[in-house]
Amino acid sequence: VITFLSDFGCDDEFVGVCHGVIAKRCPGAHVIDITHGVPRHDIRAGALMLRAALDYLPAAVHLAVVDPGVGMEQPSAQGVAARRAIALAPATPDQLLVGPDNGLLWLAAEQLGGARRAADIARSPERLEPVSATFHGRDVFAPVAAALACGKALEDVGEPIDAEGLCRLELPHAHVRDGALCTHVLVVDRYGNLTLDASAEQLAELGVVRGAELELLHAEDRAGGERASTVAVYGRTFGDAPAGAAVLHEDSRRMLALAVNRASAAALLRVAPGDELIVRAP
Amino acid sequence: VITFLSDFGCDDEFVGVCHGVIAKRCPGAHVIDITHGVPRHDIRAGALMLRAALDYLPAAVHLAVVDPGVGMEQPSAQGVAARRAIALAPATPDQLLVGPDNGLLWLAAEQLGGARRAADIARSPERLEPVSATFHGRDVFAPVAAALACGKALEDVGEPIDAEGLCRLELPHAHVRDGALCTHVLVVDRYGNLTLDASAEQLAELGVVRGAELELLHAEDRAGGERASTVAVYGRTFGDAPAGAAVLHEDSRRMLALAVNRASAAALLRVAPGDELIVRAP
Amino acid sequence: VITFLSDFGCDDEFVGVCHGVIAKRCPGAHVIDITHGVPRHDIRAGALMLRAALDYLPAAVHLAVVDPGVGMEQPSAQGVAARRAIALAPATPDQLLVGPDNGLLWLAAEQLGGARRAADIARSPERLEPVSATFHGRDVFAPVAAALACGKALEDVGEPIDAEGLCRLELPHAHVRDGALCTHVLVVDRYGNLTLDASAEQLAELGVVRGAELELLHAEDRAGGERASTVAVYGRTFGDAPAGAAVLHEDSRRMLALAVNRASAAALLRVAPGDELIVRAP
Repeated sequence: VITFLSDFGCDDEFVGVCHGVIAKRCPGAHVIDITHGVPRHDIRAGALMLRAALDYLPAAVHLAVVDPGVGMEQPSAQGVAARRAIALAPATPDQLLVGPDNGLLWLAAEQLGGARRAADIARSPERLEPVSATFHGRDVFAPVAAALACGKALEDVGEPIDAEGLCRLELPHAHVRDGALCTHVLVVDRYGNLTLDASAEQLAELGVVRGAELELLHAEDRAGGERASTVAVYGRTFGDAPAGAAVLHEDSRRMLALAVNRASAAALLRVAPGDELIVRAP
Repeated sequence: VITFLSDFGCDDEFVGVCHGVIAKRCPGAHVIDITHGVPRHDIRAGALMLRAALDYLPAAVHLAVVDPGVGMEQPSAQGVAARRAIALAPATPDQLLVGPDNGLLWLAAEQLGGARRAADIARSPERLEPVSATFHGRDVFAPVAAALACGKALEDVGEPIDAEGLCRLELPHAHVRDGALCTHVLVVDRYGNLTLDASAEQLAELGVVRGAELELLHAEDRAGGERASTVAVYGRTFGDAPAGAAVLHEDSRRMLALAVNRASAAALLRVAPGDELIVRAP
Repeated sequence: VITFLSDFGCDDEFVGVCHGVIAKRCPGAHVIDITHGVPRHDIRAGALMLRAALDYLPAAVHLAVVDPGVGMEQPSAQGVAARRAIALAPATPDQLLVGPDNGLLWLAAEQLGGARRAADIARSPERLEPVSATFHGRDVFAPVAAALACGKALEDVGEPIDAEGLCRLELPHAHVRDGALCTHVLVVDRYGNLTLDASAEQLAELGVVRGAELELLHAEDRAGGERASTVAVYGRTFGDAPAGAAVLHEDSRRMLALAVNRASAAALLRVAPGDELIVRAP
């Protein structure tokens, strides 16, 4: 089994081409598309989706490509870093990860017990020559994933590198301060729903129970000294509040999420990924 | 074979996660994605798509998830009903349906001869524990569909319930009145094309032949007493009219549909799903 | 193996229905979706995507449907031509192409050595009766592709026709004139990036090297006598220029492409597919 996640979208032939490469190199492989709708170049959103899916996937080679630094030999004018191409074996057996070394694979590797062995696959004997400047998914990652799915060893597809030196992805950590929960916005989806870095357990520690009213407050002052804020119900689902009202709930990834029935929580609180939100009982 | 229809969209990992659950539980299953682009929470559109696809699908477990009432224990503040989770066996052998009991499966069950046996699967031994409040596709429906595809019996995946008590989906019925055909808009697609609840046979009964000009009239007065209306040609395809002109034709589901070449029929007639349209020879 | 490309999009059940037809007719077939996001009715974009994918696909029956002339018995009011439905065998063995005879298959056939044999499949014994007016993908193309994938011969699925008489797709040709490269816009993608009909080799012939600054100029005067133009760097990837700056680079299809970092090259140069752009060293 190969699982496949990317930010390629569905408008072009890119996903199909990678499937073709895999079908040529490892005809028996069963490919499960996790999603190709990761927001373009959003490494953190891709890493969170991959981690969220992992528990529900069979043992597999996990191929993931969100790759703003593809083809760069040095950092770009916008500060995007050049990156290595890697395959890695985590502590959990029968699982392998293939993709760019830009943090995309980091949360998944952690969830699988941490990276144990890693290989630099930029010059893999499995790669398609000539390697293009912009589509390593096709030319490097997919053929290496296919080779691994067909039984090749990590040592056979690249040069061993130190698993300690891989690019990490650090997420902020929600914490309690002065009786309030300080959380951070990890992802804003297309409906304006917010995924936070906090868990239902952390709310419970504050003594908050289902049905309680909470205040959510942007941690930063805006020009003029005001902070965006809203009142939200702590519910089980969207439906636990009237249209236009905010509901804080545990989402399907077991993370706290804020949704506004038929409206955008992001717009209401004027937040972007990375912003801090303070949750407290009024 | 498992077929899979939902309103999950392609931006998130939700579809891939369900594929993963199925691959883990029933590795040999062949999953055919019907679509995951059903408009969000639009049970009727999903039910119509599933019915439209059914004749062209192999014998299968049909997994369908459009589920505004997921996780609710009582009706929501917006009046969305709580619903059961079900699996059902219709009169046609070798076909099974799995999904929420909110009408989504009803048209498909009817097309397969009607539901004969049904089971409540909310507490299925196949479910993934703990069942989340918002993602029964992953936690209940997919694992049950996988178990059925791998040969488990309906009795083994849930508690038997009375098939007579399932949630129905009633569609309006086109009918002839005063020499005109009274139809209803079932679906408005993203191009503004309208699917109507009438058939080519019903037009033929009125003596309308291909190439005829027809008048289409919104059944309801607008403020001021005017009704939106248009003239349409009764054609075979879109191409049978100049740009901007309306064509009434039989669509690929064998239902009458109204399209305006390079424009929106919905905007022209100011209609929404459920509205009545009167079709008559001028 | 069957590969499948279309402009059906993902919002409806159309792609899934074709998969269903294939699974019924040839249960062992492995279907690789190249893309279903070809811009609606854009034959040239579809033909270019199919050709771009071909080198990376296994030997297969290639099913492609972008079909503005579906169901027409004569040219439409908009001048869209009626077309035949065809299957063809190119010079390369173990490859077959199935689709409308409107040019969509032409570039792929050329890449596979040219069409050697062809069959008109409109009345194929494999077709689903009654054939609808608007969905030959389901009723004609998919069942014929399935039959071919299951081993039927071209002669068994349709009436032989002269492969010389197939509908061609002519692309413009970039050429050097007065020391400048005259190119044409083949495709504009959703980000406003332009695919041109020129190769890196043609730029090299002009003596242009990586890192050089180039002028790009719309070949046609606008009202008032001005031509839209921009300066672009000849780079390896997007990242080789600051935000807002234009980069000419070789894309993953090995064609020259123009991108503007975080903006639209099409808007900057006011170009549409087919327009001529002049590239020259300033």
